[in-house]
Amino acid sequence: MTSIPESSLALELDGRNTPPADIALACKLFDELEQRTSNAFGFTRPSFGLGEQIAHDMVRREAKKLGLETTVDAGCNLYMTLRGRQQGPGLMIGSHLDSVPRGGNFDGAAGVLMGLAVLSGFVKAGITPERDITVMAIRAEESVWFGASYVGSRMAFGKLDGDELASLKRSSDGVTLLSAIDANGGDARAIANGDAYLSARNVGMFIEPHIEQGPVLVDRGIPVGIVTGIRGSFRYRAAHCHGEYGHSGATPRDCRADAVRAVATLVVHLDEAWIELSKQGRDLVVTFSQFSTNPDEAAFSKIAGEVDFSLDVRSEEPETLDLMLKILHEKVEEIEKAQNVRFDLGSISTSSPAKMAPEIVSQLERCAEDLDFQSLTMPCGAGHDAAIFAASGVPTGMIFIRNEHGSHNPEEHMEMADFSLATNLLSSFCLKYPLEEI
Amino acid sequence: MTSIPESSLALELDGRNTPPADIALACKLFDELEQRTSNAFGFTRPSFGLGEQIAHDMVRREAKKLGLETTVDAGCNLYMTLRGRQQGPGLMIGSHLDSVPRGGNFDGAAGVLMGLAVLSGFVKAGITPERDITVMAIRAEESVWFGASYVGSRMAFGKLDGDELASLKRSSDGVTLLSAIDANGGDARAIANGDAYLSARNVGMFIEPHIEQGPVLVDRGIPVGIVTGIRGSFRYRAAHCHGEYGHSGATPRDCRADAVRAVATLVVHLDEAWIELSKQGRDLVVTFSQFSTNPDEAAFSKIAGEVDFSLDVRSEEPETLDLMLKILHEKVEEIEKAQNVRFDLGSISTSSPAKMAPEIVSQLERCAEDLDFQSLTMPCGAGHDAAIFAASGVPTGMIFIRNEHGSHNPEEHMEMADFSLATNLLSSFCLKYPLEEI
Repeated sequence: MTSIPESSLALELDGRNTPPADIALACKLFDELEQRTSNAFGFTRPSFGLGEQIAHDMVRREAKKLGLETTVDAGCNLYMTLRGRQQGPGLMIGSHLDSVPRGGNFDGAAGVLMGLAVLSGFVKAGITPERDITVMAIRAEESVWFGASYVGSRMAFGKLDGDELASLKRSSDGVTLLSAIDANGGDARAIANGDAYLSARNVGMFIEPHIEQGPVLVDRGIPVGIVTGIRGSFRYRAAHCHGEYGHSGATPRDCRADAVRAVATLVVHLDEAWIELSKQGRDLVVTFSQFSTNPDEAAFSKIAGEVDFSLDVRSEEPETLDLMLKILHEKVEEIEKAQNVRFDLGSISTSSPAKMAPEIVSQLERCAEDLDFQSLTMPCGAGHDAAIFAASGVPTGMIFIRNEHGSHNPEEHMEMADFSLATNLLSSFCLKYPLEEI
Repeated sequence: MTSIPESSLALELDGRNTPPADIALACKLFDELEQRTSNAFGFTRPSFGLGEQIAHDMVRREAKKLGLETTVDAGCNLYMTLRGRQQGPGLMIGSHLDSVPRGGNFDGAAGVLMGLAVLSGFVKAGITPERDITVMAIRAEESVWFGASYVGSRMAFGKLDGDELASLKRSSDGVTLLSAIDANGGDARAIANGDAYLSARNVGMFIEPHIEQGPVLVDRGIPVGIVTGIRGSFRYRAAHCHGEYGHSGATPRDCRADAVRAVATLVVHLDEAWIELSKQGRDLVVTFSQFSTNPDEAAFSKIAGEVDFSLDVRSEEPETLDLMLKILHEKVEEIEKAQNVRFDLGSISTSSPAKMAPEIVSQLERCAEDLDFQSLTMPCGAGHDAAIFAASGVPTGMIFIRNEHGSHNPEEHMEMADFSLATNLLSSFCLKYPLEEI
């Protein structure tokens, strides 16, 4: 049983300084999710599959109990709305309910349950917000299932094309995305047609609460993060360096075309560039995730004739990504000349950075200060649906909850005390919406 | 058909300036070896197997035709001797007749056939040398078959122990070395007993002619090399770096334990040490032959938590090997501290450098000058039986023949014109034995 942190109960009872938030409801739903969507190997909620549907049914059931209005769009995304006093674009809180295979209980679900906890708190406290507040349970965020990211939020904005619908197949069973949508009661034809359920005109603001997938909050001992931007990236997923196999003992240095030495040099040069650009205050992460000589050819006394590797470069700043791409190509050319090798970087894939709205970031900071707990403004290195909202022109923010052991594994671990603080922050923020600055 | 180079015929006929050498015999034997020990995939002469035995039978047949004395030791090494005018330790010329699977025709065999060509030249010219000259056809040099190097020459010097005899099994069929020796008419018990057929007392000098396995002579356009020393080595065949897997986008630089970055840094640091030590005139080669993230764990958006790699460092100079080992351990410690990783280098294997006798090197240089062709003094980076002779106290030399495409593959390529020059060099050297300086 997920236990309700005492501090949060105290906060809830203290009506003067803290907003209402129904942490008990969130605890109950985390427990139910655990019982219904996990086994000995972890949590599995496939996009448009059984586990995800169970989660959607659960939150809809609770929303109905609370008297929220519920609707479902053509892509099977679920919207649960507490009506405000005024008409007009409202505040949306959302995250996804699918998980990777054998993942954890919190990645995605925490954001949806936090939204419900806020609305339940308002309902129970008899609070009617100024504008509508909607909790969105987003479909199919995890790219592992259909080989594409942000399927649910892209469908909501009419940004998923017909080709993807017909060609993308679920990794677990080969069902096409088109069939999966229709089988869940959606309308794949409307999606293919580009019909948008959401737009910058009808969503006033979007907030995605999510567990942090990196170690920063744990390392710093801070319970809650306020995201300044979602890093964009460029990636070479299947890069190759061609050298020449040779005798390790009998080949002098200047006769070598050593692919290991060449790629190692590239790794070290880009690492040096990373250090240098960080000193300039730029945001950057650089990762050579895979690096492998050919297991069928490489041998103990042979100079390596080839190396396969992958490179993932991310930054909040488009100009930093452009600069790193330029540095990469300069270094590759330099190493090719100096070391007699040839690089074939393969195809590049890119994603644009998504800037969080500065007025949301500063308002969240003020709310945390008012609630008297420490928060950290920080970049977000992983991709999230929030990036789609930001790219669609919706003022967007993200709240990170401290989390141990990363995500996408059964060991991910969020303390309910941290969840409770973050929920109070969100609740407090909701009470101030619409913000004066916006 | 291997054609006899015109220049060498001319040289043979020119009795004044050049020594006699029966290049025609070598050409004939290379052709016969090709016909009898190769197929579409290359040349295969397994240690104590059919291909090696065919080669031994061929050279013994020719030796008998020439009237040489032939003997076989307990390890099945074959000795073919032209008697000299005086008693006492003579000159030995030798190399091996086995090959790797799907190897080339020249690695090993060229040395034995060169020795026969020299003796045949002497016999046909009616020359009786001052001291005995023996061509030794050595068994089982290639470690690929029994997982041990220099089996034949070590047996000849009583340096193969009983454990190895019983435990080493041929990779192709699992036959033990002990059984293979006895099946070929040898005496495994005598080997196990440490009986030595050869010693520094009964071998006056040893010369191993061999194709060069590196690209140096081809690159420099020089037909013949005179080896100054056989590089010793230290090797870590199964080294490991332990880092920590993490999210590539969400983990800041100072929170990482990136095994790829750590090993790449080690590669670059040892390369810098190599450059520095070469500037000091030291002999060195450094090779990271294998470098691999875990294919089951590494993924595109994960920081690498582990890397397997191998390292091969060779030098003619024992003190340079010691120094590099020291530098390696310093760098490992430095990187462990700076990058939060842990190295496990695994077990080390070492071999000592073997210095070629300086008087042999200088005499070979003088002979090449007299014959008016260019030679290059150079280190030998690969292991050879000559190292066993040198380590046993026999004054030892090696002659390299220019060779394209490396060795241990069917494309290895030695021009008979180069073989002919090297044979004349050896023949000329034999006529001067015993050297005054020795």
